[in-house]
Amino acid sequence: MKFVHIYKGTIVHAPKLGEFECHENAYLVTENGMIAGIFDTLPQKYAGLWVEDLEGKIIIPSFTDLHVHAPQYIMMGMGFDLPLLEWLNTYTFKEESRYRDPEFARRVYNRLAHELIRRGTTRVVMFSSLHREATHVLMEELERAGITGYVGKVNMDRNSPDYLCETTEESLSETRRWLEECRGRYQYIKPIITPRFTPSCTDELMAGLGRLAEEYDIPVQSHLSENDAEIAWVKELHPDTERYYESYEKFGMWKKGTVMAHCVHSDEVERKAMLDAGVWVAHSPDSNTNIYSGIAPVRKMLNEGLKVALASDVAGGAKLSIFHAAGEAIRASKLRYYYSGKKEEEAYLTVPEAFYLATSAGAEYFGAGPGFKEGDALHAIILDDSILPPSRDLTPAERIERLLYADDDRTIAGVVSEGRRII
Amino acid sequence: MKFVHIYKGTIVHAPKLGEFECHENAYLVTENGMIAGIFDTLPQKYAGLWVEDLEGKIIIPSFTDLHVHAPQYIMMGMGFDLPLLEWLNTYTFKEESRYRDPEFARRVYNRLAHELIRRGTTRVVMFSSLHREATHVLMEELERAGITGYVGKVNMDRNSPDYLCETTEESLSETRRWLEECRGRYQYIKPIITPRFTPSCTDELMAGLGRLAEEYDIPVQSHLSENDAEIAWVKELHPDTERYYESYEKFGMWKKGTVMAHCVHSDEVERKAMLDAGVWVAHSPDSNTNIYSGIAPVRKMLNEGLKVALASDVAGGAKLSIFHAAGEAIRASKLRYYYSGKKEEEAYLTVPEAFYLATSAGAEYFGAGPGFKEGDALHAIILDDSILPPSRDLTPAERIERLLYADDDRTIAGVVSEGRRII
Repeated sequence: MKFVHIYKGTIVHAPKLGEFECHENAYLVTENGMIAGIFDTLPQKYAGLWVEDLEGKIIIPSFTDLHVHAPQYIMMGMGFDLPLLEWLNTYTFKEESRYRDPEFARRVYNRLAHELIRRGTTRVVMFSSLHREATHVLMEELERAGITGYVGKVNMDRNSPDYLCETTEESLSETRRWLEECRGRYQYIKPIITPRFTPSCTDELMAGLGRLAEEYDIPVQSHLSENDAEIAWVKELHPDTERYYESYEKFGMWKKGTVMAHCVHSDEVERKAMLDAGVWVAHSPDSNTNIYSGIAPVRKMLNEGLKVALASDVAGGAKLSIFHAAGEAIRASKLRYYYSGKKEEEAYLTVPEAFYLATSAGAEYFGAGPGFKEGDALHAIILDDSILPPSRDLTPAERIERLLYADDDRTIAGVVSEGRRII
Repeated sequence: MKFVHIYKGTIVHAPKLGEFECHENAYLVTENGMIAGIFDTLPQKYAGLWVEDLEGKIIIPSFTDLHVHAPQYIMMGMGFDLPLLEWLNTYTFKEESRYRDPEFARRVYNRLAHELIRRGTTRVVMFSSLHREATHVLMEELERAGITGYVGKVNMDRNSPDYLCETTEESLSETRRWLEECRGRYQYIKPIITPRFTPSCTDELMAGLGRLAEEYDIPVQSHLSENDAEIAWVKELHPDTERYYESYEKFGMWKKGTVMAHCVHSDEVERKAMLDAGVWVAHSPDSNTNIYSGIAPVRKMLNEGLKVALASDVAGGAKLSIFHAAGEAIRASKLRYYYSGKKEEEAYLTVPEAFYLATSAGAEYFGAGPGFKEGDALHAIILDDSILPPSRDLTPAERIERLLYADDDRTIAGVVSEGRRII
C-alpha cells in the first residue's frame, strides 16, 4: 500500500538550461514521497484521493547550495571591507575556533539548519570546522531538520593560526575517526573529504586525504582559483605546478564528484581539466563580489559543458538565500557582459538559467532531476506570491522572476525534502 | 510647553562621509519632534521625564530615496532580461498607463506608501505617471503615511506609445493645473518638475517646463546618461549638444536642486557641470546593474565633491529597500574597482560610506543633517538585530554592517518621520 500525496497548483521547473516548463492548475503526485509524475488532468488511478489544493501558489523544486561554511553563519554579512586573505585572518578563523565547544555548535547549527529550510534549501555541500565533535553536531542538526547532502570536517595543518590548526597526524587521524563514526549514524547526511584549501594543507596531509577519499569512496570539496593573491600563493607553495588545480590533482582529489568553490580565475586549461575529470563548480557570485575576487566566467563554463551549480558561500556570501545567490549571479553576469563590451560569448544569465543553476543543476550533483523527475524523492518549495505588490495577471515565468528578485523568505509557504513535508 | 521625547539606546549616524559616530547607551532627545541633541548622560533639565528604553536596539537616521518611480511598484522585479529602451516599451509604459484610473492608483499607492515606511524610507524624490489625478492620489497617500519629499507629474509628448502620451499643450496645461491644485493642499509633499527624459520631451515642452520651474520656484528631476543607446539617441535629437546634460541646461533645468538619476556615463566635463550647477546625482546601483547600464563612477564623483545620494529606482531597481540599494552600491563599486585593476581612484565604497549615502547625503537634499543635527525634525529608524543569527558581542559598526547585508525589513522595529513616530 503506497502513500499518495497529490499537490495541485502551478508547477514550474527547469528540466533544461534556459527554459521554464510550466503547468498551471496541474497535479504533482508522489507515492511514498517519490515523484510519480506531473499531470494536467488527474489520472483515473488517483480519483477520489485527497488533493492538497495550492490554488494561487507555485510549486518549484527546492534549492541546492553547493558551497556553504556552516561555522561562518554567525558572521554572515560582516567584514566585507577586507579582501579574502585578510578577511580570513581578521574574522573567519577566530569565529571558527569557537566550535571547539560542541554545546556552542549545537546552539548555532540548530538555528542554521532551520534557517536553511525556511529559505527553501534542502540539499547542501557544506564545510564544517576542523572540530570532529562539532562536525557531528552539524550533521545531526541538519539531519534532524530534514536536510540532505554532504558535510566535511575541515582539514588544515599549516598557515593557520595556533588556535585553529592541527598537526598533520591529528588532522588525518581525526578525519579517519570521524569517517568511522559516520558509518550507519546518518541517513541523509554523508561525509565529504575537505582540505580547506591548498595553502592550509601540507603535501603530506593532502596525500593522506586523497587516500582516505579513495579508501572510503567519498567525494572531495575545496576552494579553487578564487583570488589573485591566493593563486600566486599556491604557485609559490607548488612551484612544480602550472595551475592551481594541479595541487589537488596530484594527490588524487581531482575526480568525478569533486566540488570546487569559486573558479573565478580558472582559465581554459583549468576549465578543460574540470570538464575532463567531472569536477563541479560551486558558483558563489555574492561572495566573489563581496570580497572582490572578480566575476566567474559562468557563460563560458556553461558553453563548454561544465557542471556548475549555485552556492551561497556563507559567509563570503551575505545570505543563505539561494534566491539571493541567483539574483547576484544574474547581476554579476550582467556586469561581466557589460565589461566584455557586450560580447556574445559573455552573454549574461537569464532568469530561467539562474533558476536552473539554483535547482536542477545542483539536484544533478545529488543524482536527481533535472526538474521534477519521475522516481526521484520530492524536493520542493511551495511559493506564495500573494504577499508581493499587486500586479496584473502574470505568467508563471514572470511570477518566478518577481519572487527571485523579491528574495523574501515569507514567500516560502512550504518545503518538502526527500519526500517529507518539513514546513 | 514643549513635548519632550527621550529615546535611549545605541545611536549611530554618519555626520561625515566614511565615518560612523556611535553612542552606546545614549539619549536622543526631541522637543516637539525636533532634535535637541544626543547625550551620553541625560541633562538635568530632562531629569524625571519618561525615557523610551530601546535597550539592545540601534537608532539611526531614516533612509532617503532620491529616485523612485511610484507607478512601477506593481512591476518590481520584472523584465530584467531586457535592456533599458526595450524594457520601457515592453513593460513600463503599459503598466504606467493603468494609472489613468485614480481608484487603481489609490489601491497601489496606499500600499506603496506603507511599504516605504515599513522599509524605513521617510523622504523621497519620486516620479508619478503623467496622470494629474493619480499624481494627487500619490501625494495624498504618501502624506497620509507620514512620508515627506517631492513628487512629480511626469511629462512626455513624443517617442511614447499612444496610450501613454500627451500633446505638448496638454502636458503643460495639466502640469500648471496640477501645480495650482497643489497650493496649500499638502503639508509634507511638494511638487517637482519632471520631464521623463530628453527623448520623450519635445523642445517646446522642455522650454515650457523650464519656465514653470522658474515661475513656481521648484526643483527639477529627470534621467541622465544612463545607457549607451539612450545617450546616442539624445545626441541625435540634439545634434547641437556635446553632452546629454546640455539638453536640460538649454531649457533652464540645470540648476541648484535638480536631481539627475543614474549619471552612469557622465564624463569629467558633465560631472564638472553638475558640480558647478549644484545638480544632484541619484545613484541607482541596482537598476544600473539589472538593466546592465554599467556602474556609475561614484568614487570619482565623491572625490570631485559632487552631491550623490542613494536611490532604489524602483522598478529598474528590484526592491524599495535602501539597505538593498546600499548593498548593491557597495557590490557594484567593488566590481568597478576590480575591473579598474584595483586603482586607488576607483576605490570601492565602504560600509560607512554607503550608510552616509543612504542617510546623511539625501537628508542634505532636504536641507537637513548631516546625521542627527540639533534643530532638525527627527527622521529615524529603530533597528532590532536580535532576530539575526547569534553572534559574539559586536561593535555598533559591525552591527550596522550585518543589518545592511541582511536587508530584512523585520529588523526595522520603529520609524520616526518629521518628528512623528509612524511605526
